[in-house]
Amino acid sequence: MSGVLILGVDPGLNRCGWGVVLSEGARLSHVAHGVIKPRADQQLASRLFDLFEALGAVIEEHQPHECAVEETYVNVNARAALALGQARGVALAAAARRGVTVAEYAPATIKKAIVGSGAADKTQIGFMIRRLLPAAGEVSADAADALGVALCHAAHGGFRRKVSA
Amino acid sequence: MSGVLILGVDPGLNRCGWGVVLSEGARLSHVAHGVIKPRADQQLASRLFDLFEALGAVIEEHQPHECAVEETYVNVNARAALALGQARGVALAAAARRGVTVAEYAPATIKKAIVGSGAADKTQIGFMIRRLLPAAGEVSADAADALGVALCHAAHGGFRRKVSA
Repeated sequence: MSGVLILGVDPGLNRCGWGVVLSEGARLSHVAHGVIKPRADQQLASRLFDLFEALGAVIEEHQPHECAVEETYVNVNARAALALGQARGVALAAAARRGVTVAEYAPATIKKAIVGSGAADKTQIGFMIRRLLPAAGEVSADAADALGVALCHAAHGGFRRKVSA
Repeated sequence: MSGVLILGVDPGLNRCGWGVVLSEGARLSHVAHGVIKPRADQQLASRLFDLFEALGAVIEEHQPHECAVEETYVNVNARAALALGQARGVALAAAARRGVTVAEYAPATIKKAIVGSGAADKTQIGFMIRRLLPAAGEVSADAADALGVALCHAAHGGFRRKVSA
């Protein structure tokens, strides 16, 4: 493949969505997507390691050139932000382990790139994901979010804002 | 060694303190401590992976039987909680990778175990760490916190609250 393989990730401890798209100039195509669900009957540390390993296996299998994640909403309470941060940190480390650079996009930027409006709702995002990537078939909400951030990254091409500390 | 080797961790992206103590019945002794400082001139994902690897190397070297971390204050703002969560998630995953179980203690529980009062200040903690573990010598604040949670875990012995999701 001559294009750029992009892995989009929607981090979460219970459900971590991922999606891989191939960007070849203006052409975008669906490669794969899925949802990682760490076993809930384990202690937190084991679940986080499961997530790390499972996302690492996805990267190993699909060998993406670049990775993109959604910037995390911080308008939640601190406890929720801590929990989300734990899953997110593990996902970022899993990408870095394979030397894949990670870009980050604000939710509004992703919506704008896909639907044309930063205020688009979930239904519109899902609709456009199906239009842009018809080969993806039925996609769950978590995987759709992950494919959405991958598409956003493809649309932004060279202009990528790296994740900063 | 016939006792239990306990690794205490004070997670942080800029400075992650760690300390290993040996608990043999009522006897406690210092094994090692240090502070991991992921290189700041990298992107966030790489820094998180550095932390994962460096803590993994500590575990590889000292082969602790158990690991203990401080429960995270969530009385900070959501942005700070997210950042802390990212480092914490990576630290927990690094422990789980080596099959080390992780226990979690509230700050007040740690203070009470070491100083006898849940309202003790940092200075008192540092003082008691030096008293309880004279072989440790001069210990930085981050490593002292890590040794503190390890000592707390030793004091709590069999009664351990596992980290829950």
